[in-house]
Amino acid sequence: MLDSERPIGVFDSGLGGLTVARCIAESLPHESIYYVGDTKRCPYGVRSEEEVRAFVLQAGHWLAEHDVKIMVIACNTATAAGLRIAQQILPVPVIGVIAPGARAAINSTRTRKVGVLATPLTVRTGAYTRAIQDLDAGVNVYGCPAPSFVEIVERELATGAHLQERWLQDGDIFDTPENRAEVERTLAPIVEGGAQVDTVVLGCTHFPLLAGPIRHALGPDVRVVSSAEETTRELEDILRRRNQLAGIGHRPTHRFATTSDNIAEFAAAGSFIFGQPLKSIEHVSLDELRGL
Amino acid sequence: MLDSERPIGVFDSGLGGLTVARCIAESLPHESIYYVGDTKRCPYGVRSEEEVRAFVLQAGHWLAEHDVKIMVIACNTATAAGLRIAQQILPVPVIGVIAPGARAAINSTRTRKVGVLATPLTVRTGAYTRAIQDLDAGVNVYGCPAPSFVEIVERELATGAHLQERWLQDGDIFDTPENRAEVERTLAPIVEGGAQVDTVVLGCTHFPLLAGPIRHALGPDVRVVSSAEETTRELEDILRRRNQLAGIGHRPTHRFATTSDNIAEFAAAGSFIFGQPLKSIEHVSLDELRGL
Repeated sequence: MLDSERPIGVFDSGLGGLTVARCIAESLPHESIYYVGDTKRCPYGVRSEEEVRAFVLQAGHWLAEHDVKIMVIACNTATAAGLRIAQQILPVPVIGVIAPGARAAINSTRTRKVGVLATPLTVRTGAYTRAIQDLDAGVNVYGCPAPSFVEIVERELATGAHLQERWLQDGDIFDTPENRAEVERTLAPIVEGGAQVDTVVLGCTHFPLLAGPIRHALGPDVRVVSSAEETTRELEDILRRRNQLAGIGHRPTHRFATTSDNIAEFAAAGSFIFGQPLKSIEHVSLDELRGL
Repeated sequence: MLDSERPIGVFDSGLGGLTVARCIAESLPHESIYYVGDTKRCPYGVRSEEEVRAFVLQAGHWLAEHDVKIMVIACNTATAAGLRIAQQILPVPVIGVIAPGARAAINSTRTRKVGVLATPLTVRTGAYTRAIQDLDAGVNVYGCPAPSFVEIVERELATGAHLQERWLQDGDIFDTPENRAEVERTLAPIVEGGAQVDTVVLGCTHFPLLAGPIRHALGPDVRVVSSAEETTRELEDILRRRNQLAGIGHRPTHRFATTSDNIAEFAAAGSFIFGQPLKSIEHVSLDELRGL
């Protein structure tokens, strides 16, 4: 296999990272992708930093053994806890979702006031604030914890295999009056608080699915930065500079691995998020991921 | 004046930053530029960090009063010492030359071993090492101090007003056998030392003028990252995202200010580095720069 045709490894605690994988597949259509979702141990947000760090390294070693040319940690919690150690230890280069989103937010803001919409844990770690202020000490960061968003998305995704059909029939299934109300309540502190935020980073890979209600709550004058999109741009810049972009003649493969015991459930929700059927799904046991 | 038509402020301790201004003028031909070179207090490398910080703020306030839309610190020493405080204090956004070069180096390297060619002072501050390892903790940075390069460039520039003619007649006037030998000696530790560096950042705004001998010493397999080019890319990304790129109908102006008492000397060397005659040069006194 040509070096440039090796797959891009994408890792997440479960399904959320498929918003990133989708963005990669759409922007870099010749690239093969190897996705691993640690659904069995999801969510990572309730675990200790040490645990998450160990999980990131396990997935990283597993992806490296499957010959990926680069690993993308497509999860904010895992990036905050495990990016540095993964970069130091793994035999493949590793990028996360925080730095690209932070840089895009800095480059976008004119008021120099940026909101970070994320899970309470990610807001608490201050990872975005650090990443933003390392690059521009003059930007104010307003963390906006969204405790209910992941649950809203997961609830909708759990309703079963007909997501795609419902979406095609009814449009954005997440953009309901109830979700709009909840999103507005959550965003109120940065919308009404006089914070003058003109840019908001979606600091959780689940949140692009709620882009409809989020954009509605923020209004047309606030830019929404998606770390999925920005990470894909960064990835493209890296592969281009390293002469590692797959050629246009390359027929890409998209493979998915999950630690979930319920492949059918992963397939249904995953196909919806990825925007096309997940054709190749395999089960990977926790022992295998641990290298046992 | 339209907001987007306000000039880009560019600041350097003297002439070196004109390599950045030139890159901006060539890549963003519709943008007005207001350049200020603190030639009278040059070089900054021998001064204390506190002094350099104060000089950066003086120039920043002066540029802000002249209504620039953004300030570029086109000097590595000044970026290392003064970027953060300038971002915190000045009423305009500020970028430096270190972060863009660091990011480009990370994205370019395949061996994950990067050389930083800079003045001894810049190498000693560790600013590039920090910037690189903040973004990718798995990249090894090899600082390569080049004590003689600025002097080589300045000596050549001091030979007078015929630089442009000599260049047109003889080609790269810096690519002489003596300069090649000196550059090779300087680069030996990262070329011969088994460091496996595949990417080298030019961490001083004077060094693009020595690109000929540097590329010759490094050979075809090592990428040379110019912070001038990368800072221009970053600037373009920022102005595009903020809807602040000047329109194609805008007739740009290029103004230059210097604290030097010898405008003719600044004009001669400056026109050579900028690649076209500096038509509008003014003298700015230190008192004026200090806001007195």
